Amino acid sequence: MMTLEPPQRILMGPGPSNVDYRVYRALTTPIVGHMDPEFMKIMDGVEARLRSVFRTANAVTIPVSGTGSAGMEAALVNFLEPGDLALICTGGVFADRMCDIVERAGARLIKVAAEWGRAVDPDEVQAALREAPGAVKLLAVVHGETSTGVLQPLEPLGRLAREAGALFVVDAVATLAGAPLDVDALAIDFCYSGSQKCLSCPPGLAPITLSARANEVVCSRRTKVQSWYLDLSMVEKYWGRERTYHHTAPISMIYAFDEALRLVLEEGLEARWERHARNMAALLAGLEALGLQSLPPASVRMPTLAAVLTPQGVDDAAIRSRLLSRYNIEIAGGLGKFRGKLWRIGLMGNSCTECNVLLVLAALETLLDEQGVIKAEGKGVAAAQRAYAAKPQAGRSAQTP
Amino acid sequence: MMTLEPPQRILMGPGPSNVDYRVYRALTTPIVGHMDPEFMKIMDGVEARLRSVFRTANAVTIPVSGTGSAGMEAALVNFLEPGDLALICTGGVFADRMCDIVERAGARLIKVAAEWGRAVDPDEVQAALREAPGAVKLLAVVHGETSTGVLQPLEPLGRLAREAGALFVVDAVATLAGAPLDVDALAIDFCYSGSQKCLSCPPGLAPITLSARANEVVCSRRTKVQSWYLDLSMVEKYWGRERTYHHTAPISMIYAFDEALRLVLEEGLEARWERHARNMAALLAGLEALGLQSLPPASVRMPTLAAVLTPQGVDDAAIRSRLLSRYNIEIAGGLGKFRGKLWRIGLMGNSCTECNVLLVLAALETLLDEQGVIKAEGKGVAAAQRAYAAKPQAGRSAQTP
Repeated sequence: MMTLEPPQRILMGPGPSNVDYRVYRALTTPIVGHMDPEFMKIMDGVEARLRSVFRTANAVTIPVSGTGSAGMEAALVNFLEPGDLALICTGGVFADRMCDIVERAGARLIKVAAEWGRAVDPDEVQAALREAPGAVKLLAVVHGETSTGVLQPLEPLGRLAREAGALFVVDAVATLAGAPLDVDALAIDFCYSGSQKCLSCPPGLAPITLSARANEVVCSRRTKVQSWYLDLSMVEKYWGRERTYHHTAPISMIYAFDEALRLVLEEGLEARWERHARNMAALLAGLEALGLQSLPPASVRMPTLAAVLTPQGVDDAAIRSRLLSRYNIEIAGGLGKFRGKLWRIGLMGNSCTECNVLLVLAALETLLDEQGVIKAEGKGVAAAQRAYAAKPQAGRSAQTP
Repeated sequence: MMTLEPPQRILMGPGPSNVDYRVYRALTTPIVGHMDPEFMKIMDGVEARLRSVFRTANAVTIPVSGTGSAGMEAALVNFLEPGDLALICTGGVFADRMCDIVERAGARLIKVAAEWGRAVDPDEVQAALREAPGAVKLLAVVHGETSTGVLQPLEPLGRLAREAGALFVVDAVATLAGAPLDVDALAIDFCYSGSQKCLSCPPGLAPITLSARANEVVCSRRTKVQSWYLDLSMVEKYWGRERTYHHTAPISMIYAFDEALRLVLEEGLEARWERHARNMAALLAGLEALGLQSLPPASVRMPTLAAVLTPQGVDDAAIRSRLLSRYNIEIAGGLGKFRGKLWRIGLMGNSCTECNVLLVLAALETLLDEQGVIKAEGKGVAAAQRAYAAKPQAGRSAQTP
């Protein structure tokens, strides 16, 4: 019987990211029952910390018992009833997933599509809203689209949603605690994320937050939510004041999540955003020096994931496989129409360090040299070093995973 | 900021049960990516071990990324399309939950109800099937109904399902690896469980297994499954041969689950069933000696959970609260119509030990004495001791949580 001894990876894909030893330690805390009064206190703490991370005062701010995609499904199926109209801003795999869920909910769909690698144009959203005045119940957008590396500016879309009387739903799976995001300032009605990206907890939880207005919509539905498991009117009764049993909470994961949130708040949200911005700037400078072209233009690049086109003639899978076997570094390839054509290099949470930036640039250059594409002479690393030197040094993290 | 230091509980409710140190240790294994080739090998091992525990050769035998209720929802929404007819055997909270999900799926429902605390009568099921010949798509039943302590005999119901051409769906949340269950011998089409009961893994995963026939039904649907997250035609592509990305697997929980399955198989399924039967017999003897009356009759009692009526005049909540604060023992109260009227004492997985049986009987007697109901004189413990003495000693576990 093979023992459970996986290699120690440096996780630089689109999540999961590397996990702090304190979070692993929290996982070994002996479990208590999900209705134990001592667990209720832990839940209170998780909710309070999660509000700080989302920058919200929303009462309903909780981790849903599933991965980020469960958060997406919760976002859509709790608001949409058959025949309702949803406007989805698309331009990548995860926005397409939203469209799929909208259709499964029996709702009608307006798609406002950007070319993959570009942000959605608010003018097009506005035009679409004008064609269905007052009819759009929900406007949803992916903040950081990991399939393309695009960071969608949220403010103009939030304004349009408010003007149209639509709920504003934001997928922050790959950005929460890595890119500036203020749920209350942006008047987001429903925001969801995943535990395993910039929060650096293992995968398995989907933190969500729900505005009072959104909560009213859920509680005044004509029909039941199609998912019993994700029905927030019931989930909320467990996490809220009533503490009524719904389903058994994933205790150990909640322990880990609590510790991960503590780590985020100890660093400070702004410091964490700044760390991601600084390291990503250095990574992008290095990748450019290696001749790799970023898919999204400079104005809309995620600070948590770089998406660069695989050079012509390079064997995508071979390079990624060598990165993994020789350096234990995981990066990701392209999804959907970019399969085989894109490298996606994540700098999320604990994985977002200067060490990892320098290392992945050196390793990539070595392997591209072996494929005869460029000559290994430290160009990527040098460019990153210049980028770091050009920035204020305070707070730079030397942490390695 | 309160630190994460919950008390160490002896978990004798209806789950979660106490977790072995090896499982906690597995949780601290550094995570790899969900598409890492090394993780794929771990998935292979989990699937193989889970097949042994379910006693099945079913290809699709996997842990769903959610708690047991997600397994229930997966069972129903993958098979049922709007207008389909489902027959649910009811008699407790969890069967009622099934009915709720059937209705959310837009399916039609036939309920065959037993009085709470009694098993469903196969003759009534047969009569109901005859009223809708050939029309019932799915017949579902809870094997161990933790809200009442009833163990439903499966064989007659499985035969009726087969004769009617209906899929046979079994909720084994509270019985898998604790009570005899052989998925293939019973020709169960879909069986689901929870990680945190007799498998003694933390909560967060719902192991499921799906017959080839059931898989065909899922793959030949006219409409999409209403849940994207639980759509088994897609989840299966990740766990099956294709290994196509669907959602990020909860890596750490899968590690823990793998170790929990190893522990089950090291003990051996039959030995584990026998341990549960032996300890439950002793617990029931002890409870009876304390004057506590079992809700279900002797013929249909679960070997993993005892359900006894709270004595007249006893303050249910006070006793359970004292058990927790003085002895760190968690047992559960009644649900639904038995709120305040029932004690539910679980002996599941690692929590199912002779030590725990003796301890809970002694503690309960002490507290009932303090409430003036009985005199503390070791009667419960004595009855349990006699029960143990009357049984073969081999394999008795002295393990404490």
